[in-house]
Amino acid sequence: MSRGVPLAERLAVSAAPVASESAAECHRWLRERADAHRFAIEPIPFGALRGWRFADGTGNLVHDSGRFFTVEGLRIGGPDGPVHQPVIDQPEIGILGILAKEFDGVLHFLMQAKMEPGNPCPVMLSPTVQATRSNYTRVHRGSPVRHLEHFLGPGRGRVVADVLQSEHGDWFRGKRNRNMVVEALGPVEEHEDFRWVTLAQLHALLGRDNVVNMDARTVLSCLPRAESAAEGRDVPVTPTQELLSWFTDRRADAGPPAVRLPLAGLPGWRYGPTAISREDGAGFRVVAVDVRAEAREVASWSQPLIEPVGRGLAAFLVREFGGVTHVLVQALPEPGFRDGVELGPTVQRMSRAVPAYGSQAFLDHVPPPGSPLIRFEAVHAEEGGRFLRAESRYVIADAGPGVPDAPPPGFAWATAAQLTELLRHCHYVNVQARTLMVCLNALG
Amino acid sequence: MSRGVPLAERLAVSAAPVASESAAECHRWLRERADAHRFAIEPIPFGALRGWRFADGTGNLVHDSGRFFTVEGLRIGGPDGPVHQPVIDQPEIGILGILAKEFDGVLHFLMQAKMEPGNPCPVMLSPTVQATRSNYTRVHRGSPVRHLEHFLGPGRGRVVADVLQSEHGDWFRGKRNRNMVVEALGPVEEHEDFRWVTLAQLHALLGRDNVVNMDARTVLSCLPRAESAAEGRDVPVTPTQELLSWFTDRRADAGPPAVRLPLAGLPGWRYGPTAISREDGAGFRVVAVDVRAEAREVASWSQPLIEPVGRGLAAFLVREFGGVTHVLVQALPEPGFRDGVELGPTVQRMSRAVPAYGSQAFLDHVPPPGSPLIRFEAVHAEEGGRFLRAESRYVIADAGPGVPDAPPPGFAWATAAQLTELLRHCHYVNVQARTLMVCLNALG
Repeated sequence: MSRGVPLAERLAVSAAPVASESAAECHRWLRERADAHRFAIEPIPFGALRGWRFADGTGNLVHDSGRFFTVEGLRIGGPDGPVHQPVIDQPEIGILGILAKEFDGVLHFLMQAKMEPGNPCPVMLSPTVQATRSNYTRVHRGSPVRHLEHFLGPGRGRVVADVLQSEHGDWFRGKRNRNMVVEALGPVEEHEDFRWVTLAQLHALLGRDNVVNMDARTVLSCLPRAESAAEGRDVPVTPTQELLSWFTDRRADAGPPAVRLPLAGLPGWRYGPTAISREDGAGFRVVAVDVRAEAREVASWSQPLIEPVGRGLAAFLVREFGGVTHVLVQALPEPGFRDGVELGPTVQRMSRAVPAYGSQAFLDHVPPPGSPLIRFEAVHAEEGGRFLRAESRYVIADAGPGVPDAPPPGFAWATAAQLTELLRHCHYVNVQARTLMVCLNALG
Repeated sequence: MSRGVPLAERLAVSAAPVASESAAECHRWLRERADAHRFAIEPIPFGALRGWRFADGTGNLVHDSGRFFTVEGLRIGGPDGPVHQPVIDQPEIGILGILAKEFDGVLHFLMQAKMEPGNPCPVMLSPTVQATRSNYTRVHRGSPVRHLEHFLGPGRGRVVADVLQSEHGDWFRGKRNRNMVVEALGPVEEHEDFRWVTLAQLHALLGRDNVVNMDARTVLSCLPRAESAAEGRDVPVTPTQELLSWFTDRRADAGPPAVRLPLAGLPGWRYGPTAISREDGAGFRVVAVDVRAEAREVASWSQPLIEPVGRGLAAFLVREFGGVTHVLVQALPEPGFRDGVELGPTVQRMSRAVPAYGSQAFLDHVPPPGSPLIRFEAVHAEEGGRFLRAESRYVIADAGPGVPDAPPPGFAWATAAQLTELLRHCHYVNVQARTLMVCLNALG
């Protein structure tokens, strides 16, 4: 297929349904790669961490190099008084990059079988490159990051998407990564842990639990819309200027930012040898693990992780207006956002329990498993490099009659096309809504 | 003219050239309003400030209410070692709003003759509403803000633009305002200090020195493009995805943010009874003024202001590519930006001397007054509520042969249409480039 064909159409070709064996084959390959590598992940007490310590004075959990990330404290103002919690501070901007290339007229994406210690299935389908700055500037003293040259520097390919996007504002303070999709112009070196897959295969795999990792999902959400030339333009029920104005209003009204605190002595938290956890056992815990792996830049390390209590939930309630699917987004305040609010799912909670920072107004409108209202449902893990067994149930479901056409304050109906356009810019759509966007696209 | 006509065309009608008397008449009215009010602005020592004091411990210049703004210190990292300076911290988001309404088929904009103590000509053409949150929540205990109801709350009109935009990152830490244009749906109360003007009148007045204030200029820059239906689409020499990727790259590479410090004891600064200034006399000074005015919410007050040393410069070098005008923007790092860099003028310096944070690579390419390369030139004042006699020479000039078609790192060619599209979103285009955008539009 010629390069003169618009990208939207080339993506549509790549997304055209394929035989389900094709996705199953990719899944089989992923499990083979998992079996080919030996690794062990074991919980350890904080005292057994190598290279990490609680800093004098603050009690912050820091790395001896002063890099990677720090676990510190946060005080979040709220109507019922302040809430305190630990938070990961990781100021450096990493790269999440997926390489694209056309084979036989169909765009393929180079995915990596990559182990992360927090993943429920340790090896998941990951971006071509998933590297913190510490990774690629070799603070780890590990091997160089494979394929990085396609994303940085003069020899890189044609950039299809390139935008800074936030990550979990419940657990990270101001974290974001550079989400990139680049079409390779020259040959790409083969490697047994990498595999070219189509958008259709990726879409099929998104319907399976814990196959496509969070980093891959957020990068894919930044792709332009896949649409054939024949498709008309969707008319949104909320004109884009109105959507932007509503969002500006919510952002301007966001309260003061959360306040950084030392990790030591957070009210309501208990500091044990193996975990820092809420006194009521809810929310999440800070823990430590020891990792022994063959296929990573470094063969063995230990690190802290955040472990949520129970499974999270992220749901889009959807409704057709004028024949066009709209999703009900909320202007969601997360304490770690760099700018107050982002557009989030209709319902989001990161664990079975408090704290939940967004509105839970539509929690009871999310249908239970098996409901005919459900269009999509899968369990997906959050970032396995920082979170331990952090799984969320991702749901896209028809809004029942209890959900009003005129959304309450803080909510708005938006089309996938509108959200995709906003995803060209930073800090509009949060990471859970980005996963849901990819799942929505997977529905076709 | 029917509301069914696209906004871009309605703006084009409003921007169609008028007799120059029309702008002159508006300018005369502005001077009459200035004469109708008595006010006096006098420099005073810090000790004579009412309601302001240097806080114990930090030496920060604070208001007794804890609101308005604070003058504190900043340490900015750089290749030649850290630079220190005072900075204004004003976390609250104000509203800069211009009301629009159609008269005889032509969109008009409601401008206010408003006094600000720092303005070189005290009364300038200002937005309909120019109010900090302290203003409109009545911390000043003054009279209510006129016309505010058209911008906030359920009775407001049709929103044409509504976006948070930064202000001077040289002098403010993280400051931004909500820039709004709203078309009134019902009647608008008349008042002697307000006047309806067309876009054409505003464009003509932008060619005169110190008539249209900064707040009006930034709001006008957020309007959609005025273009008749007949106009084709400009093809930019830098495709938008490439421009965004270049910008993401610069933002990802921005150094660590500036560090907040107490105002007291900044290295290289001298603390006198009437001014805080650099030991070498360069850059800017912090001073205090006493203000007595009739037409403001409060009849008399005193406040600190920032006073630059000498006149600033902001210039767009422009060049046609494929018949389309492009401006050379730079990814400009200002210490007070919330997110590292924004798109700024080709050349920008806020005073005759250091510190200048952007690249001065093209300083010698800005033609002197009277050069045939100059397309636009005027002196415009920066925000008179915070800055004292802060004037900049705004220049739009053809790029001479010494300016390469292939821009050096940190620079990119962009069309007005591209920048206008980015102005729908926050933190892309800095306040000086926004003034230049309005001046570019004024050229037609």
